Amino acid sequence: MSSARNLVKRVAVITAIILASVVGSAQNQTPPPARFPLSTGPWTFATAQQKIAVSVVARGFANPFSLLILPDGDMLVGERGSGKIRAIRKGVLDPKPLTGVPAVRGFFHAGLLDLAVHPKFADNKLLYFAYSKPVGDGNNFAIALARGRYDGDGLSRVQDLYVGDTSTQAGGSRIAFAADGTLYMTTSGTLISPPVAQDGNNSFGKVLHFRDDGTIPPDNPFVGRAGYRPEVFSLGHRDHYGLAIHPTSGAVFDAELGPLGGDKINIILPGRNYGWPLYGYGRQNDSTPMEHPYRDGIEPALIIWQPGITPSGLIFYTGNRFPAWKDNLIVGSIQRGRIAGTGGIERVVFNDKMWELRRETMLTDLHQRVRDIRQGPDGLIYLLTDEADGAVLKIEPAP
Amino acid sequence: MSSARNLVKRVAVITAIILASVVGSAQNQTPPPARFPLSTGPWTFATAQQKIAVSVVARGFANPFSLLILPDGDMLVGERGSGKIRAIRKGVLDPKPLTGVPAVRGFFHAGLLDLAVHPKFADNKLLYFAYSKPVGDGNNFAIALARGRYDGDGLSRVQDLYVGDTSTQAGGSRIAFAADGTLYMTTSGTLISPPVAQDGNNSFGKVLHFRDDGTIPPDNPFVGRAGYRPEVFSLGHRDHYGLAIHPTSGAVFDAELGPLGGDKINIILPGRNYGWPLYGYGRQNDSTPMEHPYRDGIEPALIIWQPGITPSGLIFYTGNRFPAWKDNLIVGSIQRGRIAGTGGIERVVFNDKMWELRRETMLTDLHQRVRDIRQGPDGLIYLLTDEADGAVLKIEPAP
Repeated sequence: MSSARNLVKRVAVITAIILASVVGSAQNQTPPPARFPLSTGPWTFATAQQKIAVSVVARGFANPFSLLILPDGDMLVGERGSGKIRAIRKGVLDPKPLTGVPAVRGFFHAGLLDLAVHPKFADNKLLYFAYSKPVGDGNNFAIALARGRYDGDGLSRVQDLYVGDTSTQAGGSRIAFAADGTLYMTTSGTLISPPVAQDGNNSFGKVLHFRDDGTIPPDNPFVGRAGYRPEVFSLGHRDHYGLAIHPTSGAVFDAELGPLGGDKINIILPGRNYGWPLYGYGRQNDSTPMEHPYRDGIEPALIIWQPGITPSGLIFYTGNRFPAWKDNLIVGSIQRGRIAGTGGIERVVFNDKMWELRRETMLTDLHQRVRDIRQGPDGLIYLLTDEADGAVLKIEPAP
Repeated sequence: MSSARNLVKRVAVITAIILASVVGSAQNQTPPPARFPLSTGPWTFATAQQKIAVSVVARGFANPFSLLILPDGDMLVGERGSGKIRAIRKGVLDPKPLTGVPAVRGFFHAGLLDLAVHPKFADNKLLYFAYSKPVGDGNNFAIALARGRYDGDGLSRVQDLYVGDTSTQAGGSRIAFAADGTLYMTTSGTLISPPVAQDGNNSFGKVLHFRDDGTIPPDNPFVGRAGYRPEVFSLGHRDHYGLAIHPTSGAVFDAELGPLGGDKINIILPGRNYGWPLYGYGRQNDSTPMEHPYRDGIEPALIIWQPGITPSGLIFYTGNRFPAWKDNLIVGSIQRGRIAGTGGIERVVFNDKMWELRRETMLTDLHQRVRDIRQGPDGLIYLLTDEADGAVLKIEPAP
């Protein structure tokens, strides 16, 4: 085992102790009732350019992390902590979760993470997922990428394509297929000391890049470079729970959470360093000012949010049902300015140079933590709320 | 006349031509009906730490700019474009405006601007106001500071204490008395080419600093310095329509509007340059990226908003009616992310180092442009909406 891996292991133990002291007391308690329970709906909202109706497709998911909409419109919802994948078929939630899903370590942001289908899913039925793979006694885990064949009731022939470093760091992940059939994967790297996200020789705080079988594209930026893992595509990331491919340019975009403000959208370029935890637009969690990120060698954000929105889920809207939103970027929000009970979604309008023109905050009145956002084959927009009674919500144009 | 003044005059003519082409067509039309008319209320809102009730104190003000609450709780409302000051006495709006108010040039952001009372108002009844003083044929004007004696029905013995450079730039102003009895005044400096706010020898885009009789404090930072007006306290500002003195430290804070995002709170220090229009946190109005402000010689913001909130009105809450908000900074918002019909207020919590801890957005559901915010002697918070049917709103704790 390399010394870098040993270092990470030692750090992981220390982190576990710290995390246990911080969140341990809450872990064994029944969560308090939701302060802003979701009513039954539907709801209508006047937004700047489009009146919308929001309704519940299904609910009762335990803090789900990922919403996957299959080409036929059926949906799969991944519950982060329980590791269950639940199916909504023809609008009806199956009470039985999918079979064949491996065990996950559900803890804080860890557990069953993002779901995606292979670009040729219609032929090969391959479903990909990121998850926190238990290691050893189960308190440790590794971020992992796996795939299995989806047969309608469960997954078969599940195999791990990638398993990262062992850690107790409780971070999530998103995965997305690019037009060339390769897959990008975000990993969490919140640890500040040492700054693991700045070290190219571990799996923390990175965008990773794989072929669909988990092998390394030979043109990955650090292939053959000493001190760097070949799967690393970019480094210096914190928690980035939004990942989207631009519909025309094919550029890779992520949405990243700063510590205290300074949340951002990055355009992910090969071999670039996005600064965390050394440089950023916000403040550290204890409110200490961060060093600003405008320096050689650190990639500036495309846009930032200050105060933060805790972004999660990211799409470019390409459908025809909301003409005013065409090609707009839409991102979910867990909470705004560190105030629980906010959330909603953000719409960002760019010009053809990807310069921001304006932004709109929507659906804050629902008071729900929006964890994921997806466009359905029907051109509508679907949200997943990360609540104890999590829900899939449908957004439609309203007259 | 100095060459700098001549330059400003020439620029003003050019600006007038540009502005006329941009806004001229809208000027002679009846404004469209408000898209989000204010209902009669009252309203209650659950916020993060405090349930609140909001009610209308008085309404029907034509795009007012300033709300002044007198020591006895009576209120004066300044209508920007008409130049009228309206009185609310014992909660009843007087149909007759105050007499004795000088004519103003009402145009875009220009007109009757901020109102303030002298620290010894109880004794001397001196009311101060900033306004756009017509010059020549009335299309030109100068930012001016004046005072008069308030006798209950009107102003008498009105005198100009300061008259700035002639311009057609349509910018507002705030004024505030510090604990030492001196007065700070913000002036607008939106013009980019030439960057008038960077030139210490004009009145545009500055914080100015006067004694209560309009004379210059001898310790003003540029007194005796060639190329600088002695009244200039800080430079490099755009539109800054929030100005507040910290209740304990006495530090001067302003809230400043960036072009496209990058709105900010500054701590105003003597002789400092705040960057506009050369450096900023947002983008120019045409979405061109600005050069970032982190450089020697440019004062960084205390906090920024990205997307912008078009801040206006600024207080530190010092009352006892909202204990959770004690010493919090509260700022009004005209609109958010360039989307009309948003607005509301923002609350910012700092620690004792003035490091931001969290922010809360409130009252967006009212869909009103909040132009001014004040704390009453009753410890309640009052808002002024900048609408065709502008209103004074009272915020109270709700059970």
